[in-house]
This record gives sequence, structure tokens and C-alpha cells, in this order.
Amino acid sequence: MSSGARMTLARIAEWTGGRIEGDPDLRVRRPMPLETAGPEDLALVADEGYLDRVEGSAAGAFLVSERLVEALGDSRPRVVVKDARAAMLPLLDRLDPTPRPEPGVHPTAVLGEGAELGEGVHVGPYAVVGPGVRIGAGTVVGSHCVLGAGAALGSDCYLHPHTVLYPNVTLGDRVILQAGARIGSDGFGYVSRPDGYAKIPQVGACVLEDDVEVGANTCIDRGSIGDTVIERGVKLDNLVHLAHNVRVGKHTAMAAFTGIAGSTRIGAWCRFGGQAGTIGHLTIGDRVDVAAQAGVIGDLPEGSTVTGYPARPADGQFKVWAAARRVPDALKRLRALEREVESLKARLDRDDGQG
Amino acid sequence: MSSGARMTLARIAEWTGGRIEGDPDLRVRRPMPLETAGPEDLALVADEGYLDRVEGSAAGAFLVSERLVEALGDSRPRVVVKDARAAMLPLLDRLDPTPRPEPGVHPTAVLGEGAELGEGVHVGPYAVVGPGVRIGAGTVVGSHCVLGAGAALGSDCYLHPHTVLYPNVTLGDRVILQAGARIGSDGFGYVSRPDGYAKIPQVGACVLEDDVEVGANTCIDRGSIGDTVIERGVKLDNLVHLAHNVRVGKHTAMAAFTGIAGSTRIGAWCRFGGQAGTIGHLTIGDRVDVAAQAGVIGDLPEGSTVTGYPARPADGQFKVWAAARRVPDALKRLRALEREVESLKARLDRDDGQG
Amino acid sequence: MSSGARMTLARIAEWTGGRIEGDPDLRVRRPMPLETAGPEDLALVADEGYLDRVEGSAAGAFLVSERLVEALGDSRPRVVVKDARAAMLPLLDRLDPTPRPEPGVHPTAVLGEGAELGEGVHVGPYAVVGPGVRIGAGTVVGSHCVLGAGAALGSDCYLHPHTVLYPNVTLGDRVILQAGARIGSDGFGYVSRPDGYAKIPQVGACVLEDDVEVGANTCIDRGSIGDTVIERGVKLDNLVHLAHNVRVGKHTAMAAFTGIAGSTRIGAWCRFGGQAGTIGHLTIGDRVDVAAQAGVIGDLPEGSTVTGYPARPADGQFKVWAAARRVPDALKRLRALEREVESLKARLDRDDGQG
Repeated sequence: MSSGARMTLARIAEWTGGRIEGDPDLRVRRPMPLETAGPEDLALVADEGYLDRVEGSAAGAFLVSERLVEALGDSRPRVVVKDARAAMLPLLDRLDPTPRPEPGVHPTAVLGEGAELGEGVHVGPYAVVGPGVRIGAGTVVGSHCVLGAGAALGSDCYLHPHTVLYPNVTLGDRVILQAGARIGSDGFGYVSRPDGYAKIPQVGACVLEDDVEVGANTCIDRGSIGDTVIERGVKLDNLVHLAHNVRVGKHTAMAAFTGIAGSTRIGAWCRFGGQAGTIGHLTIGDRVDVAAQAGVIGDLPEGSTVTGYPARPADGQFKVWAAARRVPDALKRLRALEREVESLKARLDRDDGQG
Repeated sequence: MSSGARMTLARIAEWTGGRIEGDPDLRVRRPMPLETAGPEDLALVADEGYLDRVEGSAAGAFLVSERLVEALGDSRPRVVVKDARAAMLPLLDRLDPTPRPEPGVHPTAVLGEGAELGEGVHVGPYAVVGPGVRIGAGTVVGSHCVLGAGAALGSDCYLHPHTVLYPNVTLGDRVILQAGARIGSDGFGYVSRPDGYAKIPQVGACVLEDDVEVGANTCIDRGSIGDTVIERGVKLDNLVHLAHNVRVGKHTAMAAFTGIAGSTRIGAWCRFGGQAGTIGHLTIGDRVDVAAQAGVIGDLPEGSTVTGYPARPADGQFKVWAAARRVPDALKRLRALEREVESLKARLDRDDGQG
Repeated sequence: MSSGARMTLARIAEWTGGRIEGDPDLRVRRPMPLETAGPEDLALVADEGYLDRVEGSAAGAFLVSERLVEALGDSRPRVVVKDARAAMLPLLDRLDPTPRPEPGVHPTAVLGEGAELGEGVHVGPYAVVGPGVRIGAGTVVGSHCVLGAGAALGSDCYLHPHTVLYPNVTLGDRVILQAGARIGSDGFGYVSRPDGYAKIPQVGACVLEDDVEVGANTCIDRGSIGDTVIERGVKLDNLVHLAHNVRVGKHTAMAAFTGIAGSTRIGAWCRFGGQAGTIGHLTIGDRVDVAAQAGVIGDLPEGSTVTGYPARPADGQFKVWAAARRVPDALKRLRALEREVESLKARLDRDDGQG
């Protein structure tokens, strides 16, 4: 969005399918969080948690979920929609300041022998497209990307600058790779010998299915033997590590610094918090929630929610951590009680002796 | 510093404002830690902790803090300064082996339309400077850097090779980016739908103020709506992750693998140990210390010192961890005590029955 | 390995020094894990843990360790070898689909003044070789690699695309760097002043000895003063961080996200699990095992095995964690016992009073 752009509430209502309360010709600059919105901005009021920050906000107008309108208690103009968060999508789509690059191959790009480019493909400055690479229609290859020999990219992918695909990597359609992603690197595989480690050649494939998004500087290793497979719709944040032969089920999401060790299989619709990890060769079911910083060292059934190291069911775990803080005092009470019981026993012995 | 260079103690005293004890014409090669210094090196003796390693050091001379001279107990030549650690700065500034690159634009660099370069700017081989980018005087853009359209860089910045600025990123003056830093990447923002996650376009800004330094392969996401702001003087180590809409207060320092989730606001002069993290939407006050590997899941007031997961005040926490190791034994003692009390109760019941 | 290649069991037996049971002319496509092998694949049966998956596997043939043949209980053809895992090495070496690039310097590469290239060196597209760089015979420098002024590389190294060596970095022979590795970046060194942090110039060296392998996007800082040294045979996974002046002993292996803070010295043959870390200035002995996510905050003697934060001997630690979960209940039992003892004491007081 250019900084000078303005849009009327009427236009916003049209884009989001909402209705206007207030002046439809009021112009706002851009959507903003309540805390930082100024008089020229449109502030988002998505759920109940936002309400107590409305009064203190300097926003000129609101984009508000229908069910919150009564509780809003504010006379400023607003666009009322069914779900304000979901309504951001069509709105932001139109405001996105980064236009998709024009089709065409930059004169400095290097195209290897037999590379095939679909219609409307963009290849940026200094990109290196290896021999035999196939790129589907509408895909954007950013500057300095390196696509190893034999890599295959689907259509409408977006590779931000400085991403690297090792040879023979396969991407589905609409895959997004943020800057610095490394796809198909050699896994950490060695045979231990008395004089050091011998590298096991890594010859497996690395496949990212449709609609996968990979964050900046994230690394996904190719299979050792067999393949590393990231199923469709998986979303990986920045600086994630997926080791060789990992399989991640569709629509699973992993926050930054998640690390999955070799050959672990993860189900669909799982969620990993930041800095969480699993050891290798595990089987994690569908819809498993792993809390931030949790360390998983065993298989997990479908629907589990775990936290801590070693990761345990989250249910009751906060009670365990709270109880732990009472242990130093409890140990003193235990010692005192032992003494008390000893003393009672002595009195009883004496009484019985007397009796 | 070229490996053949030598400097006299007299010159070192001049640079550091120190005084000499010993031969002012003695030449040394470079400053070194006590453990690895050889007879041609100048070893640093900065505080009390260094004293017991002085005798075993092979150093030819010392750079020593004034208050330690009496305790030094060694006759080797030395330069005595008020604070030996601070004195390293003027000394190392003159020894830095990496000369600042000459001004000029390498013939292979690609300059976009309307890019404006200040006086003395260096642009290295294969750098790509997008349309409308502005670069302040004296700034160095290393080889292969990619500066997205509309990015604005202050003066005297130093971008090491392979750094990427997404479009419209703003850097203040004297910002240093180590190799592979990714600034302004898309944040991890999606709306969950029955058939998968829909990407929320990320349209906010990403601003790094004056004197920020960013480590190698560190990633800072742009704002979703609203901005990501790193205030002046912030220092980030390698492989740090700052998510969308994070705000980091001035002079806060974060060690490697620190991860800050979306919309969390961090105060000034905080310190994060390695592998520490916070969840999103928190408010962390000024001068908060977060220990290595700590996981913060709630707001923290000014001046807090926390550790562990979930992060708790560090005060008393080591006692809690020590006590935890006594729990297996304490559980046995508790069981024994229960039996003992039961037995006492039985005796008392019997006695009372007899009585 | 081209996807159409086939090899006979006879050929596999020849490469691995094994013997054939079944048709020596049977052709297979490639080695695969038991779970995913199809009728055209050779499945690996390396140790006892694989046996219960043999029956369910669709593999056309097996590569099996001698000691497992009797227990295999399956009539499909096989190649029997002493150790099936070790036999993978000669086999995979011949199947590696990524041929070593041809010697030669790509016309787009930039060679600095005085750079010296040994025989058979490959320099890929857009690589930048700084002034005075020396590259040993047979070394591969991938596309977009940046080798800073004065760097020295041994023979037969393999630098994958997008790796960066800062000036004066030294690599031994046969060093492998995966994509995006940053070697010799400035460490995190500052002097704290009332108005902010002052950067300590980082002037030390960074040395990787023979046979070191470094994972994708891993960062190794140069020494501050003194050197960072990674001894021969060390293996680092993706996204590892080694700070300034760290020394890692020979044949130590570190999994992804391991972080070692400044000046810590690590012995030989140590193993670090993923997301493990140490604070700075520690001394870790030889053959120390640090579990995944462990946080080491003190020196460790040779042969230690530690886990948790703060890291403790692993022996007994799982019992401690299991006991912790019983604490909430134990606190209730302790309170009940206190009441019971109080009541017994009151009865005894009363009895004694009556007595």
C-alpha cells in the first residue's frame, strides 16, 4: 500500500461484505492494531479481548465483529462484519504493498541446459536455475535463488530471494519460501568408527506438497534413503529444522525454532509452539498440540496436548509446577513431622512401659 | 591486523591512555586471552577472575586494570589502564584486520530505478538494490545483499554479505547486519479454515533504529498490520527470531536462539540468555533479565529476573530445583511416616480401649 | 542416482562384500526404509529393531546383517553382509545422485587479486572469491558463495551454495559446508556504557580443521581476541550456533539448534542433542553426552551424561521427574498427616493428663 493511499469506509464495506455505521465517505489510511492506530487509521476489534482497549485507542474508525457492536460503547465510525479477523484477508489482499514481480527472466539469471519455464514465470537477478529444472506457470523465483539440477516447482509458487533448493527437490503448487530457506540439504547421518564419523551419503528425495509455506532461514533435509515429505498446507515459521526422512502431515503448523529429528512422522493439523522439539523415530498422531519449549521423547496419540521436558499431558502439569515450588518448605515440614512422630512414639513407649 | 604487524607498549599506552611498567619499546603482536597468549602476545587481565591464570600464562606482556596491579604478582611488562576491558576498544579498533571496503558500486551490482546512494557508499559484487531504495552516506552493502524496493538505509550502516531487506524496511544510522540476516520477512499469520490455513497478507513495516546490530542468520518479521520496531542500540546475536509486531526497547540484548512471538512488547535494557523465549502478546518491562532457556508465558514487571519454564523469579528457583531431587526419597519417607502414624494410632486406640 | 537406474543383487553384493541368497540377476531401484520400500526396492534390515517390520514390508529384496538372517523368517531375495548399516556406505556412494561439479571457474565468478586456486577446483556461478584467498586442489565452491579476503581452504572441501566465509577464515581438508553456513561472523561482544553498548571489535581467527561438516544455516563466530577452533572430524547439524572463542574437540557431534556460548571449551567425542546449550566460559570434558534441550551451566567431567535444566546427571533424573508428578498429592498427604499427628498428640496429652 503506498503511504499516500486512502480508502473510504464505503469501499472497505464493499471489500469485506460489511455494513457501515457512520460516514461512508470517511477515508482511512490502513488497518492498525488498536494500540498504535492513529486518527487516520482503521483499528481491528476482532474478539472480546480487544474491547477494553477501544476507549484508549486513537483510531479514526473500527473494523468490528458483529457480535461485539453492542459492547463497543463508542460512537466512532465503524465497518461491521461477521468476523473482523477473517475480514482482514480481502482487505489486506488489496493493500499488500508488494506487487508480484512481472513475468520474465532477468538478463543476469543463469539457466541450465534443459530448464523448462512455464508461462508467466519470473526469474530475478542472479538466480541460478540448474539443468533440467522445471518451473510451473506463474511461479516467482527471487533474486539469488539457487535451484539445483532436476528440481521441479509447481505453479504459482513464490520463492523469496536467497532460497536454495538442492538438486531434485520437488515443490507443489502455491508453495511459498521466505528468504534463506534451505530445502533438501544433506541430513545429519554418519557411521561411527574408531577414527571418526563416516558420512552416509544422503540420496533420498525432499518433497513439499501444495500450499506449504516455509519461513525465513528454515532448513529441511532431504531423505537419507527414502524421502522427506511435507504434506499439503503445512506452515513452518522462521528457523525451523526438519531432519532427514521426517514426514509432516497436512495442515500442521510449527512455530520458530521447532526441531524434528530424523524419521519422526507427524500427523495432520498438529501445532508446535516455538522452541519445541521431538527426538527421532517417533510417531505423533493427528491434532496433537505441543507447547512452546516442550521436548517430546515418546510417541503421542491423536489429540494429545503436551508440555514440558520430558513432554507430558498439559492437563495437571501447571499444578505439578506450582507444587514443585512448595517442596523446599514441605521437606522442612516432613522433617519436623518425623521428629514429632518419633517423640510421640517415645512418649507412647514410655507410657506403655509405665502401663 | 596483518599477521606481521607489531606494536610497542609505548604505542599501546598512547592508544589506551595507560601507563607502562617495563620496557616501552617491547613489541607485541596482538592481544590474546591469558590461556592462549604466547611470548609475543599481550594478555588481558580485566578483573579479579583473571588473576589465578596469570602465573600459568606464557604472555609476553599484560594489559591490566589499575586496581589489579598490586595483586598481579608478576614482573612481566605491562600497560596499566583504568579498565582493561574498556581499553580493548581503542586498541582493537586499530587492530581490526578487516578494512572498511572502498566507496564505489561494483560493476556487477544491479541498481533499481530511482535508487539514491549517499556519498561514500560501497555496493559489493552482485548486490541487488531495488527501485526507490535510499542509502545514506558511508553505508557498506556487502556482496549478494538484496535490498527490496523502497527500503531506506541510514548512514554508516554495514551490511555483511548475503543479508536481505524485504521491501520498505527502514534502517537507522550505524546499523550492522551480519551475514544472512533476514529483515522484514512475512510473519506467521494465518486464519484457520476447515480446509486449511489461509495466509493473512503481511503489510506492516519493519524498522530498525540507530545503532542496532543483528547477528548472522537472524530473522525479523515485518508487522502484520502495524509495525515491528527495534529501538536504538538493541543488540541481537546470531539466529534470533523476532515475530511480527514485536517491539524491542532500546539497548536490549538477546543471545542466540532467543525467540519472541508476535506482538510482544519488550522494555529497554533487558537481557535474554540463549534459547530463551516468550509467547505472544506479552508486555515485558524495562531491565528484565531472562535466563538462558527460560520460557516466559506471562507479563513481567520492570526489573524482574526470571528462569525456567514456565519462567519464574530466579530468586529461590535453584533451591526449588535442588529440592526436587530429594522428592523420590521424601516420598518414601512420607509413606514410612504414614505407616508409623497409623501404627501409633492403633497403639493409642488399643491403649485407650484398655484404659 | 538417475531414477531409471537399476542394479542387480550381484552388483550390490560385489560393492558391499556380501553374499546373495536368491536370484543374483534380480534388479532393484534403490535402498529404502522397510516402511516405504516397494517391490522394486532394496530394504535395509540393520539390527534387531527392524525385524518386526519385515513381514509388512513390500520390499523386493533385503540388505541384511549376517546375525539377523536366521531370525528374518522371509523368503525374499537378500544380500547378506556383516553390518547392513555400514554396508550402506559403499552402496550409497555409488548411488549418490549429485555428481561432483566439473572443475573450472564459472565466467560469472569474481576472483580477487592474488587468489590462488589449486588443481581441479570448481567455482560456481556468482561466487565471489576475495583477494588473497587460497583454495586447495579439488575443492568445490558452490554458486553465490562469498569467500572473504585472505580465507584459506584446504583440498577436497565442498561448499554448498550460499555459504559465507568471513575474511581470514581457515578450513582444513575435506571440510563440507551446507547451504547458508556463516563462518567467522562477528561475535556478540560489547562493553556496557550508560548510553548503550559499545561494540568490541572482533579480530580473532576462525579455524575449521580437517573433515569438519557444518549444517545448513549454522553460524560459527570468529574469536574476539584469540581464536575459535573446531577440531578435526567435528560434525555440526543445521542451525547450530558456536560463539566467539569456543573450542570444540575432535569428533564431537552437535544436533540442530545446539548453542555454545563464548569461550566454552568442549572435549573430544562429545554428543549434544538438539536444542541443547551451554553458558560461556565452561570446560566440558571428553565423551560427554548432553541430552536434547539440556542447559549446561557448570563444568562437566569426562564421560558425563546430563539432561534437563540446569543440566544434571541423567542417572536418576527420570525418577526425579516422575516423582515430581506425585508432589501435588503428596502435599495433601503431608497436610493430612500433620493433622493426624496433631490429633494423636492431643490424645496423648489428654491421656497423659488423665494418667
